[in-house]
Amino acid sequence: MTDSKTRRGPRSREAILQAASDLCGELGYAAVTMEAIAVRARVGKPTLYRWWPSKGAVFLDVVRDKIVEPAIELPDTGDIARDLRAWIRGFAGLFTDPHARQLLVGLLGAAQTDAELAAMLREKVQRPLQAGNRRRIAAAQAAGELPAMDPVLLEELLIGPPWYRLLVSGEPVTVEYADALVDAVLGRPPADGRLAGG
Amino acid sequence: MTDSKTRRGPRSREAILQAASDLCGELGYAAVTMEAIAVRARVGKPTLYRWWPSKGAVFLDVVRDKIVEPAIELPDTGDIARDLRAWIRGFAGLFTDPHARQLLVGLLGAAQTDAELAAMLREKVQRPLQAGNRRRIAAAQAAGELPAMDPVLLEELLIGPPWYRLLVSGEPVTVEYADALVDAVLGRPPADGRLAGG
Repeated sequence: MTDSKTRRGPRSREAILQAASDLCGELGYAAVTMEAIAVRARVGKPTLYRWWPSKGAVFLDVVRDKIVEPAIELPDTGDIARDLRAWIRGFAGLFTDPHARQLLVGLLGAAQTDAELAAMLREKVQRPLQAGNRRRIAAAQAAGELPAMDPVLLEELLIGPPWYRLLVSGEPVTVEYADALVDAVLGRPPADGRLAGG
Repeated sequence: MTDSKTRRGPRSREAILQAASDLCGELGYAAVTMEAIAVRARVGKPTLYRWWPSKGAVFLDVVRDKIVEPAIELPDTGDIARDLRAWIRGFAGLFTDPHARQLLVGLLGAAQTDAELAAMLREKVQRPLQAGNRRRIAAAQAAGELPAMDPVLLEELLIGPPWYRLLVSGEPVTVEYADALVDAVLGRPPADGRLAGG
Protein backbone atom coordinates (compact mmCIF):
# COMPACT_ATOMS: atom_id res chain seq x y z
CA MET A 1 0.00 0.00 0.00
CA THR A 2 1.49 3.35 -1.03
CA ASP A 3 1.50 6.47 1.09
CA SER A 4 -0.75 8.32 -1.34
CA LYS A 5 -3.56 5.89 -0.53
CA THR A 6 -3.18 6.48 3.18
CA ARG A 7 -5.96 8.49 4.79
CA ARG A 8 -5.31 10.51 7.94
CA GLY A 9 -7.13 12.44 10.66
CA PRO A 10 -10.52 11.86 12.25
CA ARG A 11 -12.05 10.32 9.13
CA SER A 12 -9.30 7.75 9.03
CA ARG A 13 -9.59 7.08 12.76
CA GLU A 14 -13.29 6.39 12.29
CA ALA A 15 -12.56 4.15 9.28
CA ILE A 16 -10.06 2.14 11.32
CA LEU A 17 -12.40 1.64 14.26
CA GLN A 18 -15.23 0.67 11.91
CA ALA A 19 -12.99 -1.79 10.08
CA ALA A 20 -11.91 -3.43 13.35
CA SER A 21 -15.51 -3.63 14.53
CA ASP A 22 -16.70 -5.15 11.25
CA LEU A 23 -13.85 -7.67 11.14
CA CYS A 24 -14.61 -8.81 14.68
CA GLY A 25 -18.20 -9.46 13.67
CA GLU A 26 -17.07 -11.40 10.61
CA LEU A 27 -14.11 -13.39 11.93
CA GLY A 28 -14.33 -13.29 15.73
CA TYR A 29 -11.97 -11.26 17.92
CA ALA A 30 -9.16 -13.82 18.03
CA ALA A 31 -8.79 -14.02 14.22
CA VAL A 32 -8.54 -10.26 13.57
CA THR A 33 -5.02 -8.97 12.86
CA MET A 34 -3.56 -5.46 12.62
CA GLU A 35 -2.76 -6.27 8.98
CA ALA A 36 -6.40 -7.06 8.22
CA ILE A 37 -7.59 -3.89 9.96
CA ALA A 38 -5.16 -1.77 7.89
CA VAL A 39 -6.25 -3.39 4.62
CA ARG A 40 -9.95 -3.06 5.39
CA ALA A 41 -9.61 0.58 6.50
CA ARG A 42 -7.37 1.35 3.51
CA VAL A 43 -4.62 2.85 5.65
CA GLY A 44 -0.97 1.90 5.84
CA LYS A 45 0.20 -0.24 8.73
CA PRO A 46 2.57 2.55 9.90
CA THR A 47 -0.46 4.85 10.23
CA LEU A 48 -2.25 2.21 12.27
CA TYR A 49 0.71 1.63 14.57
CA ARG A 50 1.33 5.37 14.94
CA TRP A 51 -1.99 5.66 16.79
CA TRP A 52 -2.41 2.24 18.41
CA PRO A 53 0.42 0.07 19.77
CA SER A 54 -1.57 -3.17 19.45
CA LYS A 55 -4.77 -4.81 18.29
CA GLY A 56 -6.03 -4.70 21.88
CA ALA A 57 -5.57 -0.92 21.90
CA VAL A 58 -7.62 -0.56 18.70
CA PHE A 59 -10.45 -2.65 20.14
CA LEU A 60 -10.31 -0.70 23.38
CA ASP A 61 -11.19 2.43 21.38
CA VAL A 62 -13.85 0.53 19.42
CA VAL A 63 -15.47 -0.60 22.65
CA ARG A 64 -15.19 2.82 24.26
CA ASP A 65 -16.43 4.90 21.33
CA LYS A 66 -19.03 2.61 19.83
CA ILE A 67 -20.33 0.62 22.76
CA VAL A 68 -19.62 1.73 26.28
CA GLU A 69 -19.98 5.49 26.12
CA PRO A 70 -23.25 5.53 24.21
CA ALA A 71 -24.80 2.69 26.25
CA ILE A 72 -23.34 2.42 29.75
CA GLU A 73 -23.67 5.65 31.63
CA LEU A 74 -25.87 6.06 34.67
CA PRO A 75 -28.42 8.69 33.59
CA ASP A 76 -29.51 11.52 35.88
CA THR A 77 -33.19 12.40 35.54
CA GLY A 78 -33.62 13.05 39.26
CA ASP A 79 -35.44 9.71 39.78
CA ILE A 80 -32.72 7.31 40.96
CA ALA A 81 -34.83 4.13 40.76
CA ARG A 82 -35.72 4.92 37.16
CA ASP A 83 -32.12 5.88 36.36
CA LEU A 84 -30.69 2.66 37.82
CA ARG A 85 -33.23 0.63 35.89
CA ALA A 86 -32.34 2.38 32.61
CA TRP A 87 -28.66 1.94 33.37
CA ILE A 88 -28.80 -1.81 34.03
CA ARG A 89 -31.17 -2.29 31.09
CA GLY A 90 -28.38 -0.66 29.05
CA PHE A 91 -26.05 -3.47 30.14
CA ALA A 92 -28.76 -6.00 29.23
CA GLY A 93 -29.08 -4.50 25.75
CA LEU A 94 -25.33 -4.49 25.23
CA PHE A 95 -24.69 -7.97 26.60
CA THR A 96 -27.40 -9.56 24.47
CA ASP A 97 -26.40 -7.81 21.24
CA PRO A 98 -24.30 -10.44 19.41
CA HIS A 99 -21.83 -7.98 17.92
CA ALA A 100 -21.33 -5.90 21.08
CA ARG A 101 -21.02 -9.11 23.07
CA GLN A 102 -18.32 -10.44 20.75
CA LEU A 103 -16.33 -7.19 20.99
CA LEU A 104 -16.61 -7.08 24.77
CA VAL A 105 -15.74 -10.70 25.51
CA GLY A 106 -12.91 -10.58 22.95
CA LEU A 107 -11.38 -7.51 24.54
CA LEU A 108 -11.97 -8.62 28.13
CA GLY A 109 -10.67 -12.10 27.34
CA ALA A 110 -7.46 -10.67 25.89
CA ALA A 111 -7.07 -8.35 28.89
CA GLN A 112 -6.92 -11.36 31.24
CA THR A 113 -3.43 -12.27 30.03
CA ASP A 114 -2.28 -8.79 28.88
CA ALA A 115 -1.61 -6.57 31.88
CA GLU A 116 -0.90 -3.50 29.73
CA LEU A 117 -4.23 -3.81 27.94
CA ALA A 118 -6.03 -4.36 31.24
CA ALA A 119 -4.46 -1.19 32.66
CA MET A 120 -5.44 0.83 29.57
CA LEU A 121 -8.98 -0.51 29.80
CA ARG A 122 -9.29 0.63 33.40
CA GLU A 123 -7.68 4.00 32.75
CA LYS A 124 -9.45 4.94 29.53
CA VAL A 125 -12.87 3.31 29.94
CA GLN A 126 -13.71 2.38 33.52
CA ARG A 127 -12.32 5.22 35.64
CA PRO A 128 -14.00 8.04 33.71
CA LEU A 129 -17.38 6.28 33.95
CA GLN A 130 -16.97 5.21 37.58
CA ALA A 131 -16.35 8.70 38.90
CA GLY A 132 -19.69 10.05 37.69
CA ASN A 133 -21.64 6.92 38.63
CA ARG A 134 -20.32 6.89 42.17
CA ARG A 135 -21.05 10.59 42.69
CA ARG A 136 -24.63 10.03 41.55
CA ILE A 137 -25.04 6.98 43.81
CA ALA A 138 -23.54 8.79 46.81
CA ALA A 139 -25.85 11.78 46.25
CA ALA A 140 -28.92 9.51 46.14
CA GLN A 141 -27.74 7.77 49.31
CA ALA A 142 -27.31 11.14 51.04
CA ALA A 143 -30.89 11.94 50.04
CA GLY A 144 -32.04 8.64 51.61
CA GLU A 145 -33.08 7.24 48.23
CA LEU A 146 -30.66 4.29 48.26
CA PRO A 147 -29.53 1.88 50.99
CA ALA A 148 -26.63 3.12 53.12
CA MET A 149 -23.44 1.29 52.15
CA ASP A 150 -20.13 2.01 50.39
CA PRO A 151 -21.23 3.49 47.01
CA VAL A 152 -18.59 1.35 45.32
CA LEU A 153 -20.21 -1.77 46.76
CA LEU A 154 -23.64 -0.59 45.70
CA GLU A 155 -22.37 0.02 42.16
CA GLU A 156 -20.82 -3.45 42.09
CA LEU A 157 -23.99 -5.14 43.37
CA LEU A 158 -25.68 -3.71 40.29
CA ILE A 159 -23.07 -4.29 37.60
CA GLY A 160 -21.25 -7.32 39.07
CA PRO A 161 -24.02 -9.85 38.33
CA PRO A 162 -24.44 -8.83 34.64
CA TRP A 163 -20.67 -8.99 34.09
CA TYR A 164 -20.62 -12.38 35.86
CA ARG A 165 -23.25 -13.61 33.43
CA LEU A 166 -21.36 -12.26 30.43
CA LEU A 167 -17.89 -13.51 31.36
CA VAL A 168 -18.45 -16.53 33.63
CA SER A 169 -21.83 -18.24 33.55
CA GLY A 170 -22.93 -17.31 30.04
CA GLU A 171 -26.54 -16.91 31.20
CA PRO A 172 -28.43 -14.22 29.24
CA VAL A 173 -28.78 -10.73 30.74
CA THR A 174 -32.41 -10.05 29.90
CA VAL A 175 -34.39 -6.89 30.60
CA GLU A 176 -36.36 -8.90 33.19
CA TYR A 177 -33.13 -9.90 34.89
CA ALA A 178 -31.94 -6.28 34.88
CA ASP A 179 -35.18 -5.10 36.50
CA ALA A 180 -35.16 -7.88 39.12
CA LEU A 181 -31.56 -7.02 39.98
CA VAL A 182 -32.32 -3.33 40.48
CA ASP A 183 -35.40 -4.17 42.57
CA ALA A 184 -33.37 -6.52 44.77
CA VAL A 185 -30.63 -3.93 45.37
CA LEU A 186 -33.21 -1.24 46.10
CA GLY A 187 -34.78 -3.60 48.64
CA ARG A 188 -38.01 -3.89 46.69
CA PRO A 189 -39.88 -7.15 47.06
CA PRO A 190 -39.95 -9.22 43.86
CA ALA A 191 -42.68 -8.35 41.34
CA ASP A 192 -43.83 -5.35 43.34
CA GLY A 193 -43.41 -1.77 42.22
CA ARG A 194 -43.34 -0.09 45.65
CA LEU A 195 -40.10 0.89 47.37
CA ALA A 196 -39.76 -0.95 50.66
CA GLY A 197 -38.08 1.06 53.41
CA GLY A 198 -36.71 3.59 50.90
CA MET B 1 10.20 -39.72 24.83
CA THR B 2 9.76 -43.49 24.68
CA ASP B 3 6.70 -45.37 25.75
CA SER B 4 8.57 -47.09 28.58
CA LYS B 5 9.03 -43.71 30.26
CA THR B 6 5.33 -42.94 30.02
CA ARG B 7 3.43 -43.07 33.29
CA ARG B 8 -0.28 -43.86 33.34
CA GLY B 9 -3.24 -43.87 35.69
CA PRO B 10 -4.13 -41.59 38.59
CA ARG B 11 -0.52 -40.91 39.52
CA SER B 12 0.19 -39.66 36.04
CA ARG B 13 -3.03 -37.60 35.97
CA GLU B 14 -1.94 -35.89 39.17
CA ALA B 15 1.57 -35.33 37.76
CA ILE B 16 0.11 -33.73 34.64
CA LEU B 17 -2.20 -31.38 36.54
CA GLN B 18 0.64 -30.44 38.89
CA ALA B 19 2.97 -29.78 35.96
CA ALA B 20 0.40 -27.55 34.26
CA SER B 21 -0.25 -25.66 37.50
CA ASP B 22 3.48 -25.14 38.14
CA LEU B 23 4.15 -24.02 34.57
CA CYS B 24 1.34 -21.48 34.75
CA GLY B 25 2.92 -20.03 37.89
CA GLU B 26 6.32 -19.86 36.21
CA LEU B 27 5.45 -18.71 32.68
CA GLY B 28 1.92 -17.32 32.83
CA TYR B 29 -1.09 -19.08 31.31
CA ALA B 30 -0.60 -17.83 27.75
CA ALA B 31 2.96 -19.19 27.44
CA VAL B 32 2.22 -22.75 28.60
CA THR B 33 2.04 -25.36 25.81
CA MET B 34 0.86 -28.99 25.75
CA GLU B 35 4.43 -29.91 24.82
CA ALA B 36 5.82 -28.23 27.94
CA ILE B 37 3.23 -29.91 30.15
CA ALA B 38 4.12 -33.34 28.74
CA VAL B 39 7.86 -32.78 29.23
CA ARG B 40 7.45 -31.48 32.79
CA ALA B 41 5.10 -34.33 33.76
CA ARG B 42 7.34 -36.88 32.03
CA VAL B 43 4.52 -38.33 29.96
CA GLY B 44 4.25 -38.74 26.21
CA LYS B 45 2.21 -36.23 24.27
CA PRO B 46 -0.13 -39.03 23.06
CA THR B 47 -0.92 -39.82 26.70
CA LEU B 48 -1.67 -36.18 27.36
CA TYR B 49 -3.94 -35.87 24.33
CA ARG B 50 -5.67 -39.16 25.12
CA TRP B 51 -7.14 -37.57 28.23
CA TRP B 52 -7.37 -33.90 27.34
CA PRO B 53 -8.17 -32.49 23.88
CA SER B 54 -6.52 -29.14 24.56
CA LYS B 55 -4.50 -27.04 26.97
CA GLY B 56 -7.72 -25.36 28.07
CA ALA B 57 -9.14 -28.77 29.04
CA VAL B 58 -6.06 -29.55 31.16
CA PHE B 59 -6.36 -26.23 32.99
CA LEU B 60 -10.05 -26.76 33.48
CA ASP B 61 -9.22 -29.88 35.51
CA VAL B 62 -6.43 -28.04 37.34
CA VAL B 63 -8.85 -25.31 38.34
CA ARG B 64 -11.58 -27.76 39.30
CA ASP B 65 -9.44 -30.20 41.29
CA LYS B 66 -6.95 -27.86 42.92
CA ILE B 67 -8.84 -24.62 43.30
CA VAL B 68 -12.56 -24.53 42.95
CA GLU B 69 -13.72 -27.70 44.67
CA PRO B 70 -11.58 -27.27 47.81
CA ALA B 71 -12.32 -23.55 48.13
CA ILE B 72 -15.62 -22.56 46.56
CA GLU B 73 -18.49 -24.52 48.00
CA LEU B 74 -21.20 -22.97 50.14
CA PRO B 75 -20.84 -24.73 53.51
CA ASP B 76 -23.85 -25.94 55.51
CA THR B 77 -23.43 -25.54 59.26
CA GLY B 78 -27.08 -24.57 59.77
CA ASP B 79 -26.18 -20.87 60.21
CA ILE B 80 -26.73 -19.34 56.78
CA ALA B 81 -25.20 -15.92 57.57
CA ARG B 82 -22.04 -17.60 58.80
CA ASP B 83 -22.02 -20.00 55.84
CA LEU B 84 -22.41 -17.20 53.29
CA ARG B 85 -19.63 -15.26 54.95
CA ALA B 86 -17.29 -18.29 54.87
CA TRP B 87 -18.24 -18.92 51.24
CA ILE B 88 -17.52 -15.41 49.99
CA ARG B 89 -14.35 -15.24 52.11
CA GLY B 90 -13.33 -18.36 50.17
CA PHE B 91 -13.62 -16.37 46.94
CA ALA B 92 -11.59 -13.58 48.54
CA GLY B 93 -8.84 -16.03 49.50
CA LEU B 94 -8.77 -17.55 46.05
CA PHE B 95 -8.90 -14.28 44.12
CA THR B 96 -6.05 -12.73 46.11
CA ASP B 97 -3.78 -15.78 45.91
CA PRO B 98 -1.39 -14.92 43.04
CA HIS B 99 -1.15 -18.47 41.69
CA ALA B 100 -4.87 -19.27 41.90
CA ARG B 101 -5.62 -15.89 40.37
CA GLN B 102 -3.30 -16.55 37.45
CA LEU B 103 -4.89 -19.95 36.78
CA LEU B 104 -8.42 -18.55 36.97
CA VAL B 105 -7.91 -15.47 34.81
CA GLY B 106 -5.89 -17.52 32.30
CA LEU B 107 -8.63 -20.11 31.95
CA LEU B 108 -11.52 -17.62 31.98
CA GLY B 109 -9.69 -15.37 29.54
CA ALA B 110 -9.20 -18.27 27.11
CA ALA B 111 -12.85 -19.30 27.51
CA GLN B 112 -13.99 -15.89 26.19
CA THR B 113 -12.93 -16.78 22.66
CA ASP B 114 -13.22 -20.60 22.91
CA ALA B 115 -16.86 -21.64 23.00
CA GLU B 116 -16.03 -25.32 23.53
CA LEU B 117 -13.88 -24.55 26.55
CA ALA B 118 -16.56 -22.23 27.93
CA ALA B 119 -19.16 -24.99 27.59
CA MET B 120 -16.90 -27.52 29.34
CA LEU B 121 -16.25 -25.04 32.13
CA ARG B 122 -19.95 -24.59 32.73
CA GLU B 123 -20.72 -28.29 32.51
CA LYS B 124 -17.85 -29.67 34.60
CA VAL B 125 -17.28 -26.92 37.15
CA GLN B 126 -20.19 -24.50 37.48
CA ARG B 127 -23.30 -26.66 37.20
CA PRO B 128 -22.32 -29.21 39.84
CA LEU B 129 -21.54 -26.41 42.33
CA GLN B 130 -24.58 -24.30 41.45
CA ALA B 131 -27.12 -27.04 42.12
CA GLY B 132 -26.08 -27.48 45.76
CA ASN B 133 -25.65 -23.75 46.40
CA ARG B 134 -29.06 -22.90 45.05
CA ARG B 135 -30.78 -25.62 47.08
CA ARG B 136 -29.11 -24.31 50.23
CA ILE B 137 -30.11 -20.70 49.43
CA ALA B 138 -33.69 -21.68 48.61
CA ALA B 139 -33.99 -23.65 51.88
CA ALA B 140 -32.74 -20.66 53.90
CA GLN B 141 -35.21 -18.42 52.07
CA ALA B 142 -38.05 -20.85 52.85
CA ALA B 143 -37.01 -20.63 56.52
CA GLY B 144 -37.18 -16.82 56.31
CA GLU B 145 -33.42 -16.48 56.86
CA LEU B 146 -32.69 -14.78 53.54
CA PRO B 147 -34.50 -12.09 51.50
CA ALA B 148 -37.23 -13.41 49.21
CA MET B 149 -36.04 -13.32 45.59
CA ASP B 150 -35.02 -15.74 42.84
CA PRO B 151 -32.29 -17.87 44.51
CA VAL B 152 -30.25 -17.59 41.32
CA LEU B 153 -30.31 -13.80 41.63
CA LEU B 154 -29.37 -13.99 45.30
CA GLU B 155 -26.43 -16.26 44.45
CA GLU B 156 -25.31 -13.84 41.73
CA LEU B 157 -25.57 -10.80 44.01
CA LEU B 158 -23.01 -12.58 46.21
CA ILE B 159 -20.60 -13.98 43.64
CA GLY B 160 -21.09 -11.47 40.78
CA PRO B 161 -19.22 -8.59 42.46
CA PRO B 162 -16.09 -10.67 43.33
CA TRP B 163 -15.95 -12.05 39.79
CA TYR B 164 -16.40 -8.51 38.43
CA ARG B 165 -13.42 -7.39 40.50
CA LEU B 166 -11.31 -10.34 39.33
CA LEU B 167 -12.12 -10.12 35.60
CA VAL B 168 -13.11 -6.51 34.96
CA SER B 169 -12.06 -3.87 37.47
CA GLY B 170 -9.01 -5.58 38.94
CA GLU B 171 -9.81 -4.23 42.41
CA PRO B 172 -8.75 -6.60 45.21
CA VAL B 173 -11.33 -8.94 46.76
CA THR B 174 -10.39 -8.57 50.42
CA VAL B 175 -11.93 -10.32 53.42
CA GLU B 176 -13.41 -6.95 54.44
CA TYR B 177 -15.00 -6.61 51.00
CA ALA B 178 -16.40 -10.14 51.24
CA ASP B 179 -17.96 -9.42 54.63
CA ALA B 180 -19.42 -6.08 53.52
CA LEU B 181 -20.92 -7.76 50.47
CA VAL B 182 -22.59 -10.49 52.51
CA ASP B 183 -23.90 -7.91 55.00
CA ALA B 184 -25.35 -5.81 52.17
CA VAL B 185 -27.12 -8.77 50.57
CA LEU B 186 -28.44 -9.92 53.95
CA GLY B 187 -29.81 -6.40 54.44
CA ARG B 188 -27.56 -5.73 57.42
CA PRO B 189 -26.56 -2.11 57.95
CA PRO B 190 -22.84 -1.48 57.37
CA ALA B 191 -20.52 -2.15 60.32
CA ASP B 192 -23.36 -3.62 62.40
CA GLY B 193 -23.65 -7.26 63.39
CA ARG B 194 -27.44 -7.46 63.74
CA LEU B 195 -29.69 -8.87 61.04
CA ALA B 196 -32.18 -6.23 59.90
CA GLY B 197 -35.57 -7.57 58.92
CA GLY B 198 -34.30 -11.17 58.91
